[in-house]
Amino acid sequence: MTLTPGADLGPSQFPITRADLVRYAGASGDFNPIHWSERVATDVGLPGVLAHGMFTMALAGRALSSWLGPDDRLVSFGVRFSKPVVVPDDDAGVALEVTGVATEGEEGRVRVDLTVTVAGEKVLGQARAEVAPGA
Amino acid sequence: MTLTPGADLGPSQFPITRADLVRYAGASGDFNPIHWSERVATDVGLPGVLAHGMFTMALAGRALSSWLGPDDRLVSFGVRFSKPVVVPDDDAGVALEVTGVATEGEEGRVRVDLTVTVAGEKVLGQARAEVAPGA
Repeated sequence: MTLTPGADLGPSQFPITRADLVRYAGASGDFNPIHWSERVATDVGLPGVLAHGMFTMALAGRALSSWLGPDDRLVSFGVRFSKPVVVPDDDAGVALEVTGVATEGEEGRVRVDLTVTVAGEKVLGQARAEVAPGA
Repeated sequence: MTLTPGADLGPSQFPITRADLVRYAGASGDFNPIHWSERVATDVGLPGVLAHGMFTMALAGRALSSWLGPDDRLVSFGVRFSKPVVVPDDDAGVALEVTGVATEGEEGRVRVDLTVTVAGEKVLGQARAEVAPGA
């Protein structure tokens, strides 16, 4: 099975809690306190603790990977960080939802346009990937 | 201090070991065994255990963040996954090196072109970001 132009992909959902941000901090090495300290985040004028932009992007990438066939290869991926993801201080956190539309891309590749939202609001803009289809 | 067009950025270096990949698997939820099992990786024809593409991208993003001033904001980021990063089964792993060149972008933004290499070979292509400069 391979990714086919015309396919509607997802939705894939990922909860994001503050614990996930702490885990991501450890793995990525990005320990900026705006991603785990309410005090620091609000002191610098943010509405609350924010998810790392690259974590949001990684989850969108994970949805994307889950839609690929075993021999499909992700060739490129790019996003705009259009709206920060504020993560509340509770066990539920927020739900990131990712959907995609596959179309014919250049040179036999498949283009995927992703829509990445939290509570219906887009958090990534111009989220696009190219996939080299396998057999 | 803010990111200024004309600046040469880096080099920033990040070691990548198999333990880092296991940590990233836990944080990202991507437990594909090609990122931790030599047996599975070689069975599917790969030269060895590969770093998650999104992890390589996250480390490039971390270098990028370290070059920004406190009020600069990362607006967009995109890469091509041009060459897989093979991570050997030892304590040293590989060293990812990231450098960047800042130039004037559109609408007052700063464009950063990143060069991301392992042992002198490019592993990400067309790695580009846009930054909205702060005060």
